[in-house]
Amino acid sequence: MFPGATAERSDANFVIVGAPLDISTSFQPGARFGPDRIRKFAETFDDYDRRTDQFFSDLAVHDAGDLHAWSDAAEYVRFLSGELGDAVADGAVPITLGGEHTVTAAGVRAVDPDVFVCLDAHLDLRSEYDGNEWSHACVTRRVLDTADEAIILGARTGSPEEWERAAEADVTVVAPEDVSDWTPEFDADSSVYLSVDIDGADPGFAPGTGTMEPFGLTPREMRDVVRAVAPATDGFDVVEVNDRDDGQAASLGGKLLKEFVYERATDQ
Amino acid sequence: MFPGATAERSDANFVIVGAPLDISTSFQPGARFGPDRIRKFAETFDDYDRRTDQFFSDLAVHDAGDLHAWSDAAEYVRFLSGELGDAVADGAVPITLGGEHTVTAAGVRAVDPDVFVCLDAHLDLRSEYDGNEWSHACVTRRVLDTADEAIILGARTGSPEEWERAAEADVTVVAPEDVSDWTPEFDADSSVYLSVDIDGADPGFAPGTGTMEPFGLTPREMRDVVRAVAPATDGFDVVEVNDRDDGQAASLGGKLLKEFVYERATDQ
Amino acid sequence: MFPGATAERSDANFVIVGAPLDISTSFQPGARFGPDRIRKFAETFDDYDRRTDQFFSDLAVHDAGDLHAWSDAAEYVRFLSGELGDAVADGAVPITLGGEHTVTAAGVRAVDPDVFVCLDAHLDLRSEYDGNEWSHACVTRRVLDTADEAIILGARTGSPEEWERAAEADVTVVAPEDVSDWTPEFDADSSVYLSVDIDGADPGFAPGTGTMEPFGLTPREMRDVVRAVAPATDGFDVVEVNDRDDGQAASLGGKLLKEFVYERATDQ
Amino acid sequence: MFPGATAERSDANFVIVGAPLDISTSFQPGARFGPDRIRKFAETFDDYDRRTDQFFSDLAVHDAGDLHAWSDAAEYVRFLSGELGDAVADGAVPITLGGEHTVTAAGVRAVDPDVFVCLDAHLDLRSEYDGNEWSHACVTRRVLDTADEAIILGARTGSPEEWERAAEADVTVVAPEDVSDWTPEFDADSSVYLSVDIDGADPGFAPGTGTMEPFGLTPREMRDVVRAVAPATDGFDVVEVNDRDDGQAASLGGKLLKEFVYERATDQ
Amino acid sequence: MFPGATAERSDANFVIVGAPLDISTSFQPGARFGPDRIRKFAETFDDYDRRTDQFFSDLAVHDAGDLHAWSDAAEYVRFLSGELGDAVADGAVPITLGGEHTVTAAGVRAVDPDVFVCLDAHLDLRSEYDGNEWSHACVTRRVLDTADEAIILGARTGSPEEWERAAEADVTVVAPEDVSDWTPEFDADSSVYLSVDIDGADPGFAPGTGTMEPFGLTPREMRDVVRAVAPATDGFDVVEVNDRDDGQAASLGGKLLKEFVYERATDQ
Amino acid sequence: MFPGATAERSDANFVIVGAPLDISTSFQPGARFGPDRIRKFAETFDDYDRRTDQFFSDLAVHDAGDLHAWSDAAEYVRFLSGELGDAVADGAVPITLGGEHTVTAAGVRAVDPDVFVCLDAHLDLRSEYDGNEWSHACVTRRVLDTADEAIILGARTGSPEEWERAAEADVTVVAPEDVSDWTPEFDADSSVYLSVDIDGADPGFAPGTGTMEPFGLTPREMRDVVRAVAPATDGFDVVEVNDRDDGQAASLGGKLLKEFVYERATDQ
Ligand SMILES: [Mn+2]
Ligand SMILES: [Mn+2]
Ligand SMILES: [Mn+2]
Ligand SMILES: [Mn+2]
Ligand SMILES: [Mn+2]
Ligand SMILES: [Mn+2]
Ligand SMILES: [Mn+2]
Ligand SMILES: [Mn+2]
Ligand SMILES: [Mn+2]
Ligand SMILES: [Mn+2]
Ligand SMILES: [Mn+2]
Ligand SMILES: [Mn+2]
Repeated sequence: MFPGATAERSDANFVIVGAPLDISTSFQPGARFGPDRIRKFAETFDDYDRRTDQFFSDLAVHDAGDLHAWSDAAEYVRFLSGELGDAVADGAVPITLGGEHTVTAAGVRAVDPDVFVCLDAHLDLRSEYDGNEWSHACVTRRVLDTADEAIILGARTGSPEEWERAAEADVTVVAPEDVSDWTPEFDADSSVYLSVDIDGADPGFAPGTGTMEPFGLTPREMRDVVRAVAPATDGFDVVEVNDRDDGQAASLGGKLLKEFVYERATDQ
Repeated sequence: MFPGATAERSDANFVIVGAPLDISTSFQPGARFGPDRIRKFAETFDDYDRRTDQFFSDLAVHDAGDLHAWSDAAEYVRFLSGELGDAVADGAVPITLGGEHTVTAAGVRAVDPDVFVCLDAHLDLRSEYDGNEWSHACVTRRVLDTADEAIILGARTGSPEEWERAAEADVTVVAPEDVSDWTPEFDADSSVYLSVDIDGADPGFAPGTGTMEPFGLTPREMRDVVRAVAPATDGFDVVEVNDRDDGQAASLGGKLLKEFVYERATDQ
Repeated sequence: MFPGATAERSDANFVIVGAPLDISTSFQPGARFGPDRIRKFAETFDDYDRRTDQFFSDLAVHDAGDLHAWSDAAEYVRFLSGELGDAVADGAVPITLGGEHTVTAAGVRAVDPDVFVCLDAHLDLRSEYDGNEWSHACVTRRVLDTADEAIILGARTGSPEEWERAAEADVTVVAPEDVSDWTPEFDADSSVYLSVDIDGADPGFAPGTGTMEPFGLTPREMRDVVRAVAPATDGFDVVEVNDRDDGQAASLGGKLLKEFVYERATDQ
Repeated sequence: MFPGATAERSDANFVIVGAPLDISTSFQPGARFGPDRIRKFAETFDDYDRRTDQFFSDLAVHDAGDLHAWSDAAEYVRFLSGELGDAVADGAVPITLGGEHTVTAAGVRAVDPDVFVCLDAHLDLRSEYDGNEWSHACVTRRVLDTADEAIILGARTGSPEEWERAAEADVTVVAPEDVSDWTPEFDADSSVYLSVDIDGADPGFAPGTGTMEPFGLTPREMRDVVRAVAPATDGFDVVEVNDRDDGQAASLGGKLLKEFVYERATDQ
Repeated sequence: MFPGATAERSDANFVIVGAPLDISTSFQPGARFGPDRIRKFAETFDDYDRRTDQFFSDLAVHDAGDLHAWSDAAEYVRFLSGELGDAVADGAVPITLGGEHTVTAAGVRAVDPDVFVCLDAHLDLRSEYDGNEWSHACVTRRVLDTADEAIILGARTGSPEEWERAAEADVTVVAPEDVSDWTPEFDADSSVYLSVDIDGADPGFAPGTGTMEPFGLTPREMRDVVRAVAPATDGFDVVEVNDRDDGQAASLGGKLLKEFVYERATDQ
Repeated sequence: MFPGATAERSDANFVIVGAPLDISTSFQPGARFGPDRIRKFAETFDDYDRRTDQFFSDLAVHDAGDLHAWSDAAEYVRFLSGELGDAVADGAVPITLGGEHTVTAAGVRAVDPDVFVCLDAHLDLRSEYDGNEWSHACVTRRVLDTADEAIILGARTGSPEEWERAAEADVTVVAPEDVSDWTPEFDADSSVYLSVDIDGADPGFAPGTGTMEPFGLTPREMRDVVRAVAPATDGFDVVEVNDRDDGQAASLGGKLLKEFVYERATDQ
């Protein structure tokens, strides 16, 4: 259980689901251990948040455990989407712990947001990767089947096709150097989904991820994005954390999750 | 390049192909790093083998590098099988470096042996696993579509369905405790394929594997099987080595490969 | 949850409690991670056991989770003992996952056995260690306040005082070399408690433990003891597993737990 | 021996004592290895400091080795305090290498400063933690029994009780974002004690610590504090370094110790 | 092969040579694994670079593999220098993957530049170290036998003799704090050699190196230097990466290599 | 200090010297950390030995610390030999902690024994390796310049030239399989030197070594050799332990050292 996520499912304002999908990781596998690792390294965080003067354990967060993953990503996304959609139907904000970035597609389907915001080193705008349209490298493209627009913060690499797709009107790319100046300007009634691919961080801060990409964001830059976007957000995830470091990636991921909940809860 | 595998492809009696498939690993992933890790830890072995008085680099071994894997295991097995079949057609013995055990199906298809011998903690006789018939846990079942019989040495666990299948006439299971007493009794003209799933060893000797299973074989027991079976063998592999230990699994795997080649070569 | 420990508490024949006490570890700490690590590495084991023809998940095993540990060992033992005693009162066999060996004292108090059998490199017969009578190095001494006799299998080191205590009539020490020849000869109505300190194994098979001691037992020797003692056993534990290896110690510990349950259950 | 700490005890201006206490660590243990690890990773640093034009080995630093720790923290603090007090009595500056933060209480007692300055992610102002008033999480509270005021730099988390205590007049908390703007304003005759809890750094720079807390200080920010405070400082420590990273925490800790000595020595 | 370095040697504009020399490393060895580790962690980078609108695999880069190292550094430098000189003679830019910094001497000899620029925590200006003039700690001194001047960016430590040497007219030292303000001002026809000692980075970003030195550069600062210097550069290397971290150092090193090639190629 | 090695140099019957030479290691470096690692993992062993009824700390063992190594192996061996010779001159038994196997040459020169016995996977009988006659791979050849004969226990690999040299009358090779049957038959007045290359063990028991070679000895087989040879032995070493495992190699090495001292001391 994520520390402090002690609410019953029926009382929950936030529902955490672990999604240990780990099949398309192109380089360093281990994202399947992400959910448990994030939970473990979050044990050391205080329940109380000074800034918002709230206890996490008071914020009606339920941890539904992990949804066992198997080798058919498309079907898994469908199944996970149903599970997360149940949370949405019950008025809760679904929070997914990846697992590879692919699982974000399930969260987005469940939430059906207007805007998709993500922190990511990569554009993830491929139509397919190695013949697989459900690769983690295609997830933002998949998401755009549902959401109206995507804002990718911290992106610093992609294929020409991805950059071309990114040049279209429904995609905004903010380079790592510009993230600290970015502020969200959503329509008042926009629904937003926020996805944190931990590789948006510089590898020094999150080496335990599938595809490290140098020159990334600092933890505080990521935190400020999470805080700024949270009030408008109806679905959230932290993905691409694996077990191949000394806990840096999981610690950062778990902390960003808590920042999200603290901020989002003040809005309720 | 596997150390000493300096022959040209056209002159080769043995062709090594890395097969870094790593998608169905149910527990600890990383088999994709197996081929390179086996090559690396083999650098420290002497070229010369005293017992057979041969230099490995004289035995016409070619290392064809790795065959890039992707997320469709069935298709990958087909493709790999073609590659290995080319080696067979050229009169060479194909040697596969896994990767998950699934890749063995490709080797067996390429060789089309009468008998399939493997060292494995697991029966791998499932018809499917998590809905996937190309899971590593099904490979011996898949192999029996091609080979007439299977001999599984060191197996110590399986599902009831697997044990039932294992009870049929075409399967022989030798418990770890009995492996040191086992000797092959192949028909003179039988073609044999030999597969080494490194988890046949006790985890103390090969912790770097996807699914550790205690109470296994010692390295010398595995070596003696490899030496005994090698003369009749037309295809070979070492699989399920990953990068999650301090080199024990890769070192053992690479050494067994060399033992195979030394012994098999004396027969030519 | 320990894989397959799906029974409700009220229906359980076996109750697993994690006891992550980790304060007196004199050398390498980390036993606090033992319970979760044992659970994790057990995920890869088959539910079905061929030898006894049973499914673990059919054997009415309940995993009660971990009992949070703090810095007062004496009080923790008392508290844990109460928890385990509740299982005993309900007719279940308590199974403790350590944590340091000290937690065994709680299991023994709860079960109140006639005979204490343990696999351990160490005598653990000190009256105190560094002024602490609740050190892991004193646990068998503590246990003898409750049990009538102790049989220590695989012990190979101790202080003079420990060896002197071991020479008394109520203690039997079996050297590692003699363990394979040992067979239990309990009175028919004796109640037995069995404790597995994973450092009974040679460090090659279980490096992830607080105080490695070479020249130890093989996994099969430990398994055979577990199987032989299990039928008479009313309480069981696996202790001293930490997170400082590549899973060998946890894998062995979890497997011995399963062996215990499979064997003990056939007796019911 | 800390590299360059070659002075005899009787000639020393600085006395280093290792204090490997590691019992109350609430999450990741291993602080007991901190002293040796700091010494080891300091081997690679130059003896000479350009900025102050001094050789460390000329600065009369003595390394008294480690003071063996046991399970009674209160008694250990008393004993360590005596040892450090001897250094103070001899006119030397005591430098403690932790071990958990609890050991700072001993240094403060020995020095009896007016002002306690520390770099820490945590307030450490609990009156007790899990019933233990000598937990590392209570050390600044303990210290305030001796010192008149505490300045906590880089603190970013705590319980409501801790924040309440922090709001009192004798405590100053400087958020990580404000540390670079902070300058000490001590009374001319104030005695100061400076404690470096390595978790004040962002986990990217010091993952090897018991309780990682993201959004922390950069190494240069910590260095600038050490340099600024050193001239007024009569006792120093580096604590909460463990062996669970690749040396980052120990390297940073050892370097900050050297920065302290170089700066403090220029004042003599 | 470095990913994308697919050109034939005869067509190459850039020739990569691995130089796994690892004998004088004074602290943490393992630089011998640097070349392969850099290649491995570069697999995850996109072939395409948005900024310069180029594919790496279009830039005529050839990977010549590793030049086996042995225990005579002076002779190895001579031999390696010949190999790299062949590339220069063929009009290609030689790129060396260390290995210890000593190998840079070979690159400089091959290129015979006017200016030597390096990113390094250390001055490396010793005339000898432990009696060895071919130690990595002497390489910039060795280089000054060939080049007219040296610019050392990010240097923060050295012996008095090194600082004295650094004070001469042909050496410029730029402290880490000043690197972001530095811009190259080479004569139009100057030939430049650029060497990246990965320990120029702060240890948080590159812990896998032989001699960590805190308070270093950020990855972006290093990148900006590489981009600024690349157009004038005729020889390049990345050195002192070892295998003692979770890939951070290798990932950064490989990325800087790619930045170098992308920028340098636009100039051709 | 090696635990219990508390004797003054002048009173010592055994003198331990750390010899962290680590330059010719052909594969995995790190032997420089062997001495400290052996000392560290020995902390957990009891001072008292039951079999010989002795306290290690009563056996007059002095730990002289490490003799700093540099890059000239021949000169280092000469220097180390002098240091060890001083111990011999004082009537003490020198015990060397490697470092690479090369350091054994120093011990043998100091002791000038009739017989050299070693546990090793390798013959180490090369006249040179990569042009270096002081490579670890040549040490037994070097030793035979001093000793009259060599007995190599557990050797399982070598070059043809080594096997040829091994076939001469002054060399005895005992294969791993035969070591348990071997018993020493020294002339009554023979002086013996005993060297333990930890790679004599199977990699499962000692993965932390420079060149793993499967199919090796068990820890008990090594122990029995040490006990059998110790009474006649005038010099001893444990070499080739590095820091690339979880402590198995160091633990085994330190324990064998203690077994040597316990047994040898009973003879005095
Ligand atoms: Mn992504
Ligand atoms: Mn990404
Ligand atoms: Mn298998
Ligand atoms: Mn298997
Ligand atoms: Mn015990
Ligand atoms: Mn024990
Ligand atoms: Mn603290
Ligand atoms: Mn803290
Ligand atoms: Mn350098
Ligand atoms: Mn450097
Ligand atoms: Mn040797
Ligand atoms: Mn050897």
